[in-house]
Amino acid sequence: MKLKAKIFNWLAGRPVVVINQKTAEKLNVHVDERILLSSDGKKIHAVVDIFEKIVKNNEIGLSHEVNSYLKLKNNSKVEIIASELNPAGKIIKKKIEGKPLSKKELQIVISEIVQNKLTEPEIAYFVAAEKLRGMSLQEVINLIKAMVKSGNKLKFKQKIIADKHSIGGIAGNRTTPIVVSICAAAGLILPKTSSRAITSAAGTADVIETIANVEFPAKKLQKIVNKIGACLVWGGALGLAPSDDKIIQVEHILNLDIEPQLLASIMSKKIASSSNHIIIDIPYGKSAKVETKKRAKKLGRKFKQLARHFKLKLKIIYTDGKQPIGKGIGPVLEMIDVLNVLKNDPHAPQDLRKKSLYLASELMKLCNIKNSRKKAKEILESGKAYEKFKEIINTQNNAEDFDKRISKLKPAKFKKIIKAKKTGEIAEIDNRKINTLCNVLGTPETKTAGVYLHNNIGKIKKHEPLITLYSESESKLKDGLKYYRQYNPILIR
Amino acid sequence: MKLKAKIFNWLAGRPVVVINQKTAEKLNVHVDERILLSSDGKKIHAVVDIFEKIVKNNEIGLSHEVNSYLKLKNNSKVEIIASELNPAGKIIKKKIEGKPLSKKELQIVISEIVQNKLTEPEIAYFVAAEKLRGMSLQEVINLIKAMVKSGNKLKFKQKIIADKHSIGGIAGNRTTPIVVSICAAAGLILPKTSSRAITSAAGTADVIETIANVEFPAKKLQKIVNKIGACLVWGGALGLAPSDDKIIQVEHILNLDIEPQLLASIMSKKIASSSNHIIIDIPYGKSAKVETKKRAKKLGRKFKQLARHFKLKLKIIYTDGKQPIGKGIGPVLEMIDVLNVLKNDPHAPQDLRKKSLYLASELMKLCNIKNSRKKAKEILESGKAYEKFKEIINTQNNAEDFDKRISKLKPAKFKKIIKAKKTGEIAEIDNRKINTLCNVLGTPETKTAGVYLHNNIGKIKKHEPLITLYSESESKLKDGLKYYRQYNPILIR
Repeated sequence: MKLKAKIFNWLAGRPVVVINQKTAEKLNVHVDERILLSSDGKKIHAVVDIFEKIVKNNEIGLSHEVNSYLKLKNNSKVEIIASELNPAGKIIKKKIEGKPLSKKELQIVISEIVQNKLTEPEIAYFVAAEKLRGMSLQEVINLIKAMVKSGNKLKFKQKIIADKHSIGGIAGNRTTPIVVSICAAAGLILPKTSSRAITSAAGTADVIETIANVEFPAKKLQKIVNKIGACLVWGGALGLAPSDDKIIQVEHILNLDIEPQLLASIMSKKIASSSNHIIIDIPYGKSAKVETKKRAKKLGRKFKQLARHFKLKLKIIYTDGKQPIGKGIGPVLEMIDVLNVLKNDPHAPQDLRKKSLYLASELMKLCNIKNSRKKAKEILESGKAYEKFKEIINTQNNAEDFDKRISKLKPAKFKKIIKAKKTGEIAEIDNRKINTLCNVLGTPETKTAGVYLHNNIGKIKKHEPLITLYSESESKLKDGLKYYRQYNPILIR
Repeated sequence: MKLKAKIFNWLAGRPVVVINQKTAEKLNVHVDERILLSSDGKKIHAVVDIFEKIVKNNEIGLSHEVNSYLKLKNNSKVEIIASELNPAGKIIKKKIEGKPLSKKELQIVISEIVQNKLTEPEIAYFVAAEKLRGMSLQEVINLIKAMVKSGNKLKFKQKIIADKHSIGGIAGNRTTPIVVSICAAAGLILPKTSSRAITSAAGTADVIETIANVEFPAKKLQKIVNKIGACLVWGGALGLAPSDDKIIQVEHILNLDIEPQLLASIMSKKIASSSNHIIIDIPYGKSAKVETKKRAKKLGRKFKQLARHFKLKLKIIYTDGKQPIGKGIGPVLEMIDVLNVLKNDPHAPQDLRKKSLYLASELMKLCNIKNSRKKAKEILESGKAYEKFKEIINTQNNAEDFDKRISKLKPAKFKKIIKAKKTGEIAEIDNRKINTLCNVLGTPETKTAGVYLHNNIGKIKKHEPLITLYSESESKLKDGLKYYRQYNPILIR
C-alpha cells in the first residue's frame, strides 16, 4: 500500500511514523507495532503512532529519524509493508536463553541495529544478555568482525598507525588530546577517533567539540591526517563500526558497562581506522570501571588475545584510578585543563600532565622511537605539542581562529561552591559519584556543566573550597546539590 | 517553568511530549531525555520529542498516555520540572549486577512502572535481570506484595472464593470459560480475571472480548459477581496489580517468559481478587512453557511455597502439553470451540471438553463439593453450563443479545488451506510455532486472525487438510505462509 509522505521536523529519538486511525485500520496495524517502509530500494522499520491532528487519510508523517534515512520529499509516495518477520529478535532471545551466537547471527543483529530496525527495548535485551550471559572469545571476535564489516574503513599509506585509548571510568582523565599532540609532533600518524560519554561526564569527542568540529566524513578525515599527521574526531560521524553509538545510547539509560561490548567497541574502531600500534590505559581503583589490579590484568589479557588474533601490536598500561585526574570534569572544564597543560601553565593539574607524558612516551616507544621519555617531555615543554594541538583544531575548523575560540570557553552560568566542613584529610574522591553528579548537572549534553575539584586526595582545612558545581539550569543545580549531600562523593576524615 | 498544554489525540504507546527547539533550550532538555510534568498534585514523567510544526513557543503537546493521567484541558497550564533523579533506574542496575532487591526497592520499581515513569528499555532491563539473575523466594514474595499494594483489591462476603489458572504456553487450551461456567453453575464464587496474550495467540480476555465487554471498574465487577457468582474479565482494567500489563508488553517484544514474573503475576492477581481456593494447570511438553514433568513439578513446588506463605488452598494439576488443545487458535476461532463444547455439539473438540471437565471437577473437589466428577459432567451435559455462560456474557454486556453476538462470530476474510503432502502420521504439533504463526497472521490484536487445526497427533492421508490460516491482511497471510513453510509447525512422518 502506498501513502503520501509528510516530512515533519520532528526529533523523536527513534524511527516513528504517524498515521490516523482510518489509515491504521486499512493497514491493519496498531499503536506500537512496527511497519516496514520502502522507497527507492531503501527499507526502514518504524514504530506506529496514531495522531489524528496532523495527518489526513492515506498520509504518513515521518519523524526525522525515518526520513534522514529515506530522504523523501514532502508529498512523495512511500510503500508500506504492514509486517515482516524480525530475525534479529529471535537471535537476541536465543542469547538471553544462554546460547552462543554464530558469526552470521551477530552480523544480522549488528546490521539491523545499523539500519535502525531494532527498537530500544530490543537493544536493551541484547545488551543485558551480553552482560549477564557473557560472550566467548570467539563471539567477541565475530562481534568485532560484524561491527567492522557494517561500516567504513580508513586507509593510510604509512606502515605504523598509532593509537592511544583509555577504557574510561575515571572522571576527567582527558589525556588523549595531550598524548595525540605530543606524539604527532614527534612524527607519528594518529587518526584518533573517540566516542562520546558512556557513563562519564564527557568523552574526548564531547571535549574537543567545545572548540572544534569533530564530525567528518571518512574521506575528509583521511585528508586531514595525511596533511598534519593526526586528528581528534568523533568516531560516530565517520561510520566506523556504526552500531556502537546506538548501543551506547541504550547502555547509558542505566549507566551500564558491558565487557564484551567494551572490547568489541574499542577493537572494532581501531581495526576500522587501520591502527596497528596501540596502547590501552586500564585504570583500576575502588570507584573505577575495574576495581582491582587483578581484574585489570584479566581484562588486559583479553585485549591481548584479541590483538594477537587481529595481528596488532598492543601494550596495556595499568594506571592508578583511585581518584579523578585533572581538576575540571565536564566538556568545557576539561578542555580548560588540557589547554593549561599544553601551555605549560604552572596552575595546570600536575596529575594530568604527568599521566599524559607517561602515556605519550610509552606509545612512542611502542612505535620504535628511541629515548621516548626525554623526547616527549621536550616536545611538551618547548611548546611544540601546543602548536600541534592548535594546528589540529584549526585544520578541523578550517579556520585560523584557535585563540578566539579558546578565549570564549567559560563554565555554566549557575554555580555553587561547596566548602570543607572540617579540617582533615580528603580520603576518597569517588569517580562514579563525581560522574553521576555531573550528569545530574547536565553533562555531557550541556557542555558547560560539570564540576571543578579544588583539591586531590590529601590534607584540607575547614572552610577551604572543595568543589564547585556548574549548571545552566537552576533546577539541575538544585538536583546536583541534593545529590552531593545525599551521596558525598568527597570523603573527608 | 509553566507551559501551555496542547491536548493531542495522539497515541504514542508511551508517555511522550512535544515541544519546539526554543522551548527545549529554555528548559535545557534534549530529545529522548525525560521531564517531569506536574499539575494539581499529580506528577508524570514523559520522554521529550522536538516537533516544530505542531507547537509554538511555551507550548507543550501531550500524548494520550500523558493526558489520560493528568486529565488537563486544552490550553491549561502545566508545570515542568526539567529533571529529577531516577531511583528506580539505580535499583534495576543493582539487580542487573546480581544483588537481591529489598521489599522497599521492589515497591519503588513497581510503583514507578504503575505511574508510567519508566521507559520501555528500562523495563526491558528489569525483565532481563529478573530472568537472568533469578529471584529468591523472599524476593518473589516481596514482589507479589508490592504488586498487590500498587493496585485495587476485590472484596467478597463469602468464605470460599475459587479460581482456576493455566500458566499458558499451549496453543488454544481455552478451558477457562468452560470451567468457570461449570463451577459457577455448581454454586461456586469465581471472580475470574484473565490477562491478554503474552506469548500465545490469545489470552482468555482476548477471547471473551470477541463477544463481551471485559473491562470493568472494581466496584462494578463486585456487583456482577455478587449477582451471578462469576465473571470472565480482563484483569488489567480492574487495576489489580496494574504493573503487570506494562511488563507483559515489554516481555512480548521478544516473547519472553520470566519465571519470577510469572509466579508474581499469577499470585498477585489471585490475592488482589481475594481468591483462596485455586487450581493451577501446568502443562508440560517439548513445545510447552515447561518441557518436562520434572521441571513442571519444580515450578509447582514454588507455587505451593507461595500459597503456604499467603495462606491459600492451592492444587497443581500437571497436564499433557505435547500439542495444542482445541481446533481453533486465535480469539474468534477459540471462542467458536468454547461455544461448541458448551452446546454439547458433537463436532466440538473432545480434548478441550475432556480437559475442561477434569479441571472443573478438581476445582469443585478442592472447594469441598462431593462427587465432583459426576456433578461437573451432569452440569455440562444438561446445558446448565451453557446457560451460566450466557448469563455471564449477557450480564457483562448489560444486554440480552447473546445469540445475536455469537451468530456474528466469523474468522478473518483471507484464508489459505494447507493440505498434507503425504500419507503418514502427524508426529508433532509445535505449540510455540503455532502461536508464532498466529502472531504473524495478526493475533492477538486482530481478533479474527489465527489458524484452524484439522487434526490432532495421529494418522493423516495425503491431500487431507492439515491447517487453515486466517488473516485480515494479504501481506500478513503471505508472511504466515512463508513462516509455515520455513518452520513446519506440523511434522508428518
